[in-house]
Formats: sequence, C-alpha cells, structure tokens
Amino acid sequence: MAADRIDMLQASLPFYQWYGASPHSRRAGEPGVVDLLFGNPHDMPIPAYVEALRRHAEPQNSSWYAYMLDHPAATEVVARDLTAHTGLPWDRDDVAMTTGGWGAIATAIRMLTDPGDEVIYYDPPWFFYDILVRGAEAVPVVLTLQAPRFSPDPDQLAAAITPRTRAVILNTPHNPSGRVLDDSELAAVAEVLSDASARHGRPIHLLSDEAYRLIVMDGRRSASPAEHYEHTLVLYSYGKQLLAPGQRIGYLAISPRIGLAERQALRQAATVTRFVSSWGFPNNVLQRALPDIAHLCIDMGAIQRRRDHLVPVLEEHGYEPTMPEGTFYVMARSPDPDDEAFVARLAAQDLYVLPGSTVNMPGWFRISLTGSDAMVEEAARRVPGLRASR
Amino acid sequence: MAADRIDMLQASLPFYQWYGASPHSRRAGEPGVVDLLFGNPHDMPIPAYVEALRRHAEPQNSSWYAYMLDHPAATEVVARDLTAHTGLPWDRDDVAMTTGGWGAIATAIRMLTDPGDEVIYYDPPWFFYDILVRGAEAVPVVLTLQAPRFSPDPDQLAAAITPRTRAVILNTPHNPSGRVLDDSELAAVAEVLSDASARHGRPIHLLSDEAYRLIVMDGRRSASPAEHYEHTLVLYSYGKQLLAPGQRIGYLAISPRIGLAERQALRQAATVTRFVSSWGFPNNVLQRALPDIAHLCIDMGAIQRRRDHLVPVLEEHGYEPTMPEGTFYVMARSPDPDDEAFVARLAAQDLYVLPGSTVNMPGWFRISLTGSDAMVEEAARRVPGLRASR
Repeated sequence: MAADRIDMLQASLPFYQWYGASPHSRRAGEPGVVDLLFGNPHDMPIPAYVEALRRHAEPQNSSWYAYMLDHPAATEVVARDLTAHTGLPWDRDDVAMTTGGWGAIATAIRMLTDPGDEVIYYDPPWFFYDILVRGAEAVPVVLTLQAPRFSPDPDQLAAAITPRTRAVILNTPHNPSGRVLDDSELAAVAEVLSDASARHGRPIHLLSDEAYRLIVMDGRRSASPAEHYEHTLVLYSYGKQLLAPGQRIGYLAISPRIGLAERQALRQAATVTRFVSSWGFPNNVLQRALPDIAHLCIDMGAIQRRRDHLVPVLEEHGYEPTMPEGTFYVMARSPDPDDEAFVARLAAQDLYVLPGSTVNMPGWFRISLTGSDAMVEEAARRVPGLRASR
Repeated sequence: MAADRIDMLQASLPFYQWYGASPHSRRAGEPGVVDLLFGNPHDMPIPAYVEALRRHAEPQNSSWYAYMLDHPAATEVVARDLTAHTGLPWDRDDVAMTTGGWGAIATAIRMLTDPGDEVIYYDPPWFFYDILVRGAEAVPVVLTLQAPRFSPDPDQLAAAITPRTRAVILNTPHNPSGRVLDDSELAAVAEVLSDASARHGRPIHLLSDEAYRLIVMDGRRSASPAEHYEHTLVLYSYGKQLLAPGQRIGYLAISPRIGLAERQALRQAATVTRFVSSWGFPNNVLQRALPDIAHLCIDMGAIQRRRDHLVPVLEEHGYEPTMPEGTFYVMARSPDPDDEAFVARLAAQDLYVLPGSTVNMPGWFRISLTGSDAMVEEAARRVPGLRASR
C-alpha cells in the first residue's frame, strides 16, 4: 500500500493514535493503578475455560494439529446456540469461523463490498469499523446515535441509503453506550432496510455485531436483529463472554431466512475472503474446545454490582452517566470539554479511563466495568474529588 | 466482492477445486489409507510442544488472555534466531507476528502493493501465492523453474521486471521440488534485483518464503536470501518445523540491512495491514509459548529415511523422482500424461498423492514424506505395480 494510504488508514484510528501517546501501556498492571480503560480482564480467567484449553491441547490422534478450516464441532455448536437464541433454524454450513469478532467484521465488510461501495455505521462506534471499511476500499457513511437513548433514527437511516449502500452495521448491546435495542427499534430498522432493498432491487445486508449478546444486565435478553430482518449476517466474538480477547475465536453466520442459492454464494464469498485475508480461520485448539467453552460466561452479577456501585456516585456528582443495559461500559460527561486533557489528568493519578473523543464522543469519557471490584470501588471513592483534578 | 471477483479468485486455486472433488476428505484417517497428500502430521505431535501449549494455557496473572498485538517474548526469540541463522543483527521491533506463513505472505504482499502493481513468483508455486497476489489486487507475473534443478534463471528474472514490479517471492527450501538454493544462486538473484532497483529508482523487495528453513536433509544449512539481498522480508511459519499447521503462528521480519527510516515505514505498514485484514496477529497462548517451542523440530532423520527408502524404488521403476535436499516432498513423473487421472486411480486404491497439475506441473505427482513410516513403506511396496493401475 502506498505510504499515503497507510497514513490515511492509520489516521482513521484516533483511538490508536491516542493510545500510542498514553502512559497506560507502561503502567498497566502496576500496583495501585486503577485500570478501567479497556474491556480487558482484571480478574483471573474462568477456571473451566482454562481447563478446556488445556484438555483440547492434548492430542487425541496424530491429526490433532493438522490443517483446519471450519471445524464441524465448532460450527455445529454455533448453529445450535443461534437457533436456541433466535428461534430460527440456523444451518452449520452457514457458519464461518473467524479470528474473533474483528475477523468476522472484516470478512463481512470485504465479502459484501467492491471499491467505492458504501457501508453505514453508527457513531459512537467500535474503534475499528472505520479502518475496516476503508481497508476494504469501501466508503464509510456515518450516522449518529444521540444520548441518552442512543437509538437509531429510522428517517435518518432511510435518508442515508443510496444505490451504493451494501451494508449497515448495527451493534447491540452497544459499545460504548450500553444500550440493548428493543424489538420495536429493531423492527423500525428492518422496515427501512426492507423498503430500501426493494427500491434498489438488491438486498442491503445488516451486519449485526453481537459481540456483547450475553453481556446483559437486569435479566435482559438481547434480541438479534436477525429476528427482524431477513438479510442479516450475525458477527460474534467469544472474547467478551469469556473475557479472553487475546484468544481469537468468533464467527460470521448467515441467516437461514436468506434463500439457499444466495446463502451458498455468501458461504463461498466468506471462504474466499478468509483466504485472501491473513488466514481468517481460528486456531485449531480453540475450535476443538468450542463445544466446552461456548456456554461459559463471566460473572455478570459482578459487572452489574460494579455498575450499581459506580453509576449513582457519578450521577450524584453531576457526570450524567449512562445506565448500561449491557456491555462492560459506562459513559459519563467530562467536566472539562477537552476530554483528553481530563483523562490525562486522571491518568497522572493512576486512574485510567477512555476519552470519548476516541469514539467520536468529545466531552465524554468511558469507564470499563471489567476492572476488579477493588478498582471500581477505588474509582467510586475518587469521584467526588475528580472535578478538582488539575 | 462482486460475484465475478469471487469466482476469479476461486478459479485461481486449481488445488482447491481439485481437492473439493477428491475422495480424500472423506477417507483420510481410515485404516489402510496411505495418505501422502499434504504436509500434514501422521505421527503424534512432539511431546514438548504439547507440554508447552498446556503450560502456557495456564494463566499466571489476570491479564493472561488480554488483548495482544506482538508479544515481546515472541518477537525477541524470532530476532535472536534470525541473528543466529544469518549473522545479521535483527531487531525485534522489525518482527511482525502473523497467523502462520500464510498470514506473513498475505501481509507482505498487501503492504507492498497498490492495485495494478506486479508481484513475481515462480512455478511450481505454493498453492496460494496466486490468490494472495490477486486478492491484494496486484498482478501475478509467473516465471518457471525447470526440472531437474529448479534454479531461478537470472536472465529470465531480469526480463520480467518492469517499473510496476514491487516484489519477488522466492521459496527456499522449495515446495514442491525440494531444492535448497545455494549461495551462488541466491547471489545471482540478488544481483538482478539490486540492478533493477537501482535502474527503477526504488527498491524491489524480495519476499523470502522460508517456511521449510529447518526442514533440510543430509546436514545441509538453508541460507536465507537476506544474507545476499538488502531489501528482504523473511516470511516464516512454525507450522512446518512443529508439523502443526492448524496452529497458526509465523512472522514477517524486516531485514536489518534496510535503512532505519524505511524499516519504520515498513513496521507501520505491517501493523496497519494486519489490522485491515482479519486480525493478522496470532493467538496469545501461541505467542507466550513461542520461546519454549521455537527450537523444537520434528525428526528430520525420519523424513530423510523415508526419502531414502522411496526415491530409489521410484527411480528404478522409471518415475524420474526428485531427490529433495529439503521440504517434505518428492516429485515424480506420472506414467499417464493426465496426472489427475493417474492420481484418481491411485486414490481408488487408497493411496493419496497430489497431482502435479494443481501446482502447475502437469505430468507429475507429489508425494509427502510426512506420512508415517508404515505408509511410506506401503507406498514403496506398491510402486512396481502402479504403472499398471487402471
């Protein structure tokens, strides 16, 4: 890639630029550091997960570590889980295993677009939608979710669709707002996409980023957009439910409501796309282990307790925090309009949070509830004094 | 990607088409099947490898499975090993960890080319050079290595270089011929590339696919092209030395002979390229384990004994086999000019080998020495009767 293209792609990662200059990478893990920056683990991993990895690293035959594309044991558990969650009859042949949610999103965007095609996504976004759309030489079209509801506006979506629109990325539960879209919101999006697909004579695909599907609170269920819209690809990462984001396994699943001939073309496209990328298939030990780990999940009670400890304190001190229904994150308003400056002052006191400007929400900051109980308690203790931080 | 682009890319994989129609995928692993088709394991994995994976799957702290780009323990062992092998002072910051050799090759091609740029590679090739060049929207320029020496012809290379040539892929030890290029052959390639780079006013990069660097016989050492040519990227897979191709770890390493400013630009390009592909970084357990597994290698004595058992029998019966100096493979002439038909007749007798036409060597077939001793012995026993196979 020409130097200017590399620079353009790197510039599309404001988060990455910011992080490169942050002291966090040097200080994380030191005693006394309150690290609420990423959805990274700060408690020991789920013991059953470790046990499953160790067990499936033990070869049962001479082919144990042989070449592997999609392992049937993995695609089958995915199809079964999606069927249980959505009530739709998912086919394991429609499941493409990927190197985490990132791999699923990258594969979906690349397989559905040609250069110059448009992909719609919503601000505030996951950090890397933009670079993945641009990396596929497609054109990002960015809509905005407004606080406090962060609900997609159907009229705004309808107005943004053009004949070049190939896909719309929807993320629910939504990082960073914590919103879990309800059935009426999903139905409204589906209606817009169905109308536009009919009008343009070709399907607009909904890319449903459901990485946080199981990371829900207050006994909620997070509906899949696939329950509402036919042309949906579900994109998933096991990195959230296992809180093991460095272990790369996820999937792209093609809705069973899509006609068979079209699904077969999408299967082929997903395989070719995983070939032409950097080998988009997960490691074989992870695929073999999936049946034993697909139903493990971190303690959502702990995440919820941390939320319920921290949010009222933020509220009381005027930070106008979100009350997340899902995901690991609380958003709050920065007392300094320059959120990067505010976050840098907190970092100087060994309290790490994410500036909202890295997710196109200037004037806000994001707190991750994956910090340990002790970290979240310490953060809550410091809230009353934060505003005075200099 | 448009349907015609998917079809074009899939058509660039003659191997994949052939394999889809082969009975191998159903029959492999059944008793009595003599499976010499791929460089896949047919003996149990190296015990120390299994032990290292299990040990590094055991978390030592709460961040064990956290997000990971390049792990310093991994890049350091790579730099140290390359320094020991080549005598050049490799810098760990110039090492980009990848999802196997495939990931390294895909990353290198994509980072060095813009659409329409040319990449030269040699026939017979590794199966997937073509799809990775085309997948990056670059143009493959294919030269031919002639039996029995399979030595690159400097004049042919010089004539193929144009102002659009960005990279030349060289594979030594060479799959499928088994040739290990010697210093004089590498120096001749280097001279052509140095001259052409000077003439065109920009470096042509040599992509050195060294996946079989340790898979050498008769006490040979496989020199790296980096020892001869400045603008070299070494592309490596640990899948061969560990005979664990489903466990995805390898690297791209930028030669220390390249100037620092240019190396810095290449580092940045390698990172951005791994981002825009399907997350091109290996799993964290594999990266953590690398210091313990980087020096393990399968029993090359066994590979050599199998070669020395099989090649004379093929020779005696007129198959004109290669005598590999490295890699896992023996090439032999098909008695039927239609090598696919010949290979299909062998498959009907539960003897699986690769038709040469899948690697652009029609009239030949390839035998993998990664079959077990018993499989190779059985194949040798059957050689006298093969010609009569109908």
